[in-house]
Amino acid sequence: MNTKESSIPKGMRDFNSTVVCRRNYILDIVKDSFERYAFAPIETSAMESIQTLTGKYGDEGDRLIFKVLNSGDYLTKVNIDNNIDYRSLTKKITEKALRYDLTVPFARFVAQNRNDITFPFRRYQMQNVWRADKPQKGRYREFLQCDADIIGVNSLFSEVELIQLYDDVFTRLNIPNVNILLNNRKILIAMVELMGVSDLFDELVIILDKLDKIGVDKVKSELEKKGLNRKSILILESFINAKSLNELSPLLKGSEIGLEGVKELEFVINTLEKVGLRSSRLIFDITLARGLDYYTGAIIEVKVSNINFGSIGGGGRYDDLTSIFGLKDISGVGISFGIDRIYLVMEELRLFPKELDFSVQVMFINFGEEEAVYSLSLLKLLRNKGIRAELYPKSVKLQKQMNYANKRNIDSVIIIGEDEIKKGIVKIKDMNSGQQREVGVTKLVSEFL
Amino acid sequence: MNTKESSIPKGMRDFNSTVVCRRNYILDIVKDSFERYAFAPIETSAMESIQTLTGKYGDEGDRLIFKVLNSGDYLTKVNIDNNIDYRSLTKKITEKALRYDLTVPFARFVAQNRNDITFPFRRYQMQNVWRADKPQKGRYREFLQCDADIIGVNSLFSEVELIQLYDDVFTRLNIPNVNILLNNRKILIAMVELMGVSDLFDELVIILDKLDKIGVDKVKSELEKKGLNRKSILILESFINAKSLNELSPLLKGSEIGLEGVKELEFVINTLEKVGLRSSRLIFDITLARGLDYYTGAIIEVKVSNINFGSIGGGGRYDDLTSIFGLKDISGVGISFGIDRIYLVMEELRLFPKELDFSVQVMFINFGEEEAVYSLSLLKLLRNKGIRAELYPKSVKLQKQMNYANKRNIDSVIIIGEDEIKKGIVKIKDMNSGQQREVGVTKLVSEFL
Repeated sequence: MNTKESSIPKGMRDFNSTVVCRRNYILDIVKDSFERYAFAPIETSAMESIQTLTGKYGDEGDRLIFKVLNSGDYLTKVNIDNNIDYRSLTKKITEKALRYDLTVPFARFVAQNRNDITFPFRRYQMQNVWRADKPQKGRYREFLQCDADIIGVNSLFSEVELIQLYDDVFTRLNIPNVNILLNNRKILIAMVELMGVSDLFDELVIILDKLDKIGVDKVKSELEKKGLNRKSILILESFINAKSLNELSPLLKGSEIGLEGVKELEFVINTLEKVGLRSSRLIFDITLARGLDYYTGAIIEVKVSNINFGSIGGGGRYDDLTSIFGLKDISGVGISFGIDRIYLVMEELRLFPKELDFSVQVMFINFGEEEAVYSLSLLKLLRNKGIRAELYPKSVKLQKQMNYANKRNIDSVIIIGEDEIKKGIVKIKDMNSGQQREVGVTKLVSEFL
Repeated sequence: MNTKESSIPKGMRDFNSTVVCRRNYILDIVKDSFERYAFAPIETSAMESIQTLTGKYGDEGDRLIFKVLNSGDYLTKVNIDNNIDYRSLTKKITEKALRYDLTVPFARFVAQNRNDITFPFRRYQMQNVWRADKPQKGRYREFLQCDADIIGVNSLFSEVELIQLYDDVFTRLNIPNVNILLNNRKILIAMVELMGVSDLFDELVIILDKLDKIGVDKVKSELEKKGLNRKSILILESFINAKSLNELSPLLKGSEIGLEGVKELEFVINTLEKVGLRSSRLIFDITLARGLDYYTGAIIEVKVSNINFGSIGGGGRYDDLTSIFGLKDISGVGISFGIDRIYLVMEELRLFPKELDFSVQVMFINFGEEEAVYSLSLLKLLRNKGIRAELYPKSVKLQKQMNYANKRNIDSVIIIGEDEIKKGIVKIKDMNSGQQREVGVTKLVSEFL
């Protein structure tokens, strides 16, 4: 055996049952909140045509998409020589790729099923995505995304509802100090216009996104390297220093798109002030940029104060995502929950309830074939009533069977030997108290209901 | 836009919310039965190292494994020329592959986590697998498998429990005429020995597996092509014609392994006769072979009479699966539920309960900004009580909003205009009866509890 054979690839994970139960605790709440907010579930295929995914996530994103090799003899119609570069070879030998997020497949789904969908369409989706990212704490190459989107309407009430949805989930998970950061791409577009560097928008957004990681001085020096002049950088600084929407408006004077962005933010913030959030804080943050290419309006990110795992959620409005799939004039807005980060936060803050672990209520001791067959009939009755129960599969030493029951956190052990069968009774040992009691065999089921 | 961009690859599927709800109906029952039978959940990564998967599913299986192209410039250390064949190129440019089933990843998981696992280990797993199979009805390139395995003990009570588990699930799903077919690899091994063609075991198993599809004559002519003599074929025929275990024993006289197989089958069948199945029939079937390389004892397959979608489940005992990952002497037995086939059967027999569809209880009509903000506060109260509710996001014409509510099967529509706000009331329109009632705004929530 070589070691690769018995381990998993870098950035991939297995989950034991404790982790599965904890993840399900989070997922059940997210799912339930999605449904309270009237989002309907859909699922899309893990693989998409490469054309569906490329060009939607920026150059960096394109590089991180996992491609699937064509099946069979994929070289029959391909000419290659030793000068071929990997990019052209990739085009010839792959046509499928793994989902990189849920938003682009969702847009493809909407375009493809446009005639069957009632708009505005509210859907949620909880599925894995794959990215060839460098693995680090809280970042894996396979991870679950949980998304809710409202598509086919450009009402700002959708942004309001999605922020409420974030607040609802994090309140129900008891996560304290949740900050929901809000910005609007229109303001960033206006800012870059005023700086006179609209052609550098994408790069600027990526640099700006790093502000809280690398600080303002490093951002400035990165911008200088890009060739930005002093005046542009001063404009940027004045924006970064704006602490509220009121301070921002004068800077945007004359920019129609910029003032539209301010107006949108004002509506969302004011409405949420009136309706109230359950426990989260909503914060305007001019430095919030979000890397993804497709956002055009509101952008949202969720962070927990004093915990440095990055964001636990993010989203925004995209006005034109389905048009790349041939369906025009469909505006949408969506948010995503980062389950792995949420898990880490909950673990760090010890927020998982005790006793989440998978537990078995009853185990029958195996004293030999006859007793075991007799036990199987009782086991069947218990299971038919929904009680989690098992029979130890071999008649090994009692001590060994009891050890197993202990390690598996089994609540009660049932002891049925020759004697008990004759007398028509069963012995029940409570594994927590250690106490043992006898009940008539016909009363066994009711003992556990 | 090209059409590839807006469609999904061959053999892949999306699920709309009706399908998701129906699938979840099946999955919830399967999951609940797994847990009644004391199986604990685990999950493994979608990608495995290629070495983990190859050589476990036979040559045919190896061809059907989806390989993932290495990331970045995967050609830097690779010499290729135009004579390279796809097999050697594949080895140089891929090191990860997508899960082909759940059993091999499970065996890898057990070997890797051997020190943390309490044996016998009962686990279930419900995850997608991918196969580059030719798509056809009920067979897709991505599909969900639901497996339960008991590993680390070689008791036949495990086989008994797994057959009961099949019976439990199909009974709860109300699927009639379920046949659980049972055979034992040991009998097949003995038979092939007696035929004098042990070296052809794998090929024979594959041909035998086709018996109910192509008939006995075609099987015979395929065997003749493989070079089998008349005597061997006569022996095979005598086995195929054996209708019960009693008829089989004389044929196996002198074969220790063969008689062991018979004894094992007898134990399982007799025990289940004593304990009783809820609704399924257990049938010994000498022609059941199952293609997978790793089975060594019992083999199981589930079919529905008169429905020709192939099997809806299958499994068996594997005595040596983890030894390829360095963990010896661990016997296991497992079964798998084919959710897609089960879905098709349920659809064909109209077994899905009505009203499984995702439904929203309450929608607020949007009469403008002020009314909408007022509605949002009420919406929040409803949602906090777990009621599925939404606000129509724009104040468009009432007719359009009502049409939306109709199409989405919303139970009740709430009408709040200027007047209602002043009077402190809300109008509730029941969308089924069409009747409308007024209640005080403070009583709204209790109307839906």
